[in-house]
Amino acid sequence: MSKNTKVNAAILIIGNEILSGRTQDTNTGTIATWLNTIGVKVCEVRVIPDIKKIIVETLNVLRKTNDYVFTTGGIGPTHDDITAESVSEAFNLKYKIHKEAFKILEAYYKPGEFNEGRQKMVWMPENAELILNPTSGAPGFNVENVFCLPGVPSILKSMLGGLKNKIVGGEPILSHTISLRTVESEIANSLTKVQDQNKDVEIGSYPFFHAGKLGVSIVLRSESQTKIDICNSQILEFIKEKNIEIVDR
Amino acid sequence: MSKNTKVNAAILIIGNEILSGRTQDTNTGTIATWLNTIGVKVCEVRVIPDIKKIIVETLNVLRKTNDYVFTTGGIGPTHDDITAESVSEAFNLKYKIHKEAFKILEAYYKPGEFNEGRQKMVWMPENAELILNPTSGAPGFNVENVFCLPGVPSILKSMLGGLKNKIVGGEPILSHTISLRTVESEIANSLTKVQDQNKDVEIGSYPFFHAGKLGVSIVLRSESQTKIDICNSQILEFIKEKNIEIVDR
Repeated sequence: MSKNTKVNAAILIIGNEILSGRTQDTNTGTIATWLNTIGVKVCEVRVIPDIKKIIVETLNVLRKTNDYVFTTGGIGPTHDDITAESVSEAFNLKYKIHKEAFKILEAYYKPGEFNEGRQKMVWMPENAELILNPTSGAPGFNVENVFCLPGVPSILKSMLGGLKNKIVGGEPILSHTISLRTVESEIANSLTKVQDQNKDVEIGSYPFFHAGKLGVSIVLRSESQTKIDICNSQILEFIKEKNIEIVDR
Repeated sequence: MSKNTKVNAAILIIGNEILSGRTQDTNTGTIATWLNTIGVKVCEVRVIPDIKKIIVETLNVLRKTNDYVFTTGGIGPTHDDITAESVSEAFNLKYKIHKEAFKILEAYYKPGEFNEGRQKMVWMPENAELILNPTSGAPGFNVENVFCLPGVPSILKSMLGGLKNKIVGGEPILSHTISLRTVESEIANSLTKVQDQNKDVEIGSYPFFHAGKLGVSIVLRSESQTKIDICNSQILEFIKEKNIEIVDR
């Protein structure tokens, strides 16, 4: 893949606990931030329930419309962990014991502790490639462009490093933030003009309330530092004209 | 709508800042938890970028497959706030100044402060119904089953109360949590048996690591307290047999 190609990804969060509001997803931020650094842009996130039909259908949409799909959740030992089975069905592959994963977990646990519950975690789509888990043994896996990671944030984080060689990104996505002591409506028109003149830079405007004061963060994102710099200088210009204070944030 | 009907909702998070990992979404949890209490179950969440075509297409899928759709983000005064315009297009309605919203903001701001930037916030789909904003003036709105809320969590929270009479839910979704000093693989088989015998109760199993110790929370969810109680007693039975400690969590 050429370094100038834009590379897109989707994140598929599998888990009733996120949909019910019981658990706060933080994996999206972890994965998206990491992907930015290797030049992959997350274009869509979906959160869906632990229902096989829905997982299969959603996977079959996302894997065709994105360069990469990252799933989180549903690869543990309990009855509600159905990601591996669903990925098998989506790719029309056999769902079976993965010999390499079996060996890894057999060695990981003390003799006699690799019980039936734990053995469920080595059932995977046939010929899946493993994603090693330095935290708790049980590996994730990928089939083609679909990468299946666990839901527990600390374990997921520890597995991303091992993925680096499997993901081919484009130019890293750079960003620059300018935070201002103002309100959005004061800068809206000027910012629109800057956006119109800099179509290739994604300009976001985000109000914040911090230490008792209102402010706005302007975020510039692009693969090109030069384009960000040009955009930045145009913004600094209208800020100076309007006599708006820049703040640390 | 009968009290026994299941009522579903989707949440559509509109915002590049969530996809880039810069901002952590917390609105999903806020909306989902609140909806549970009025008997509406969130079945899907999507996070999409600030791109009109994508917003329109996604809205037109979600509003037809769910009883309610809640959008967050994109209703402020800046160039990247395009939710109202997109909803107008999705419903094939004129995008125009909403007279009632205009009056509200005219009264909200000091004379002379209701500038062009702020006036953008009263452009809405024709005949949209307003959702009042007790925090910062600018109202949200709904068209049919699509409810558009702001992205700033504190403002969004303050607007949910005003929605209550507009949403007709089913039976509230009840839940019960049992937290155990064990690991998932120890209880996986027994839990599968309980799930097989209690198809109407959604049983989730969530490992946790707290105060240096591993544990598992089992979450039972259903509209029926009786069904939760039956399920709970079956779980307590196998926990006792296995001599597993119940913990506070």
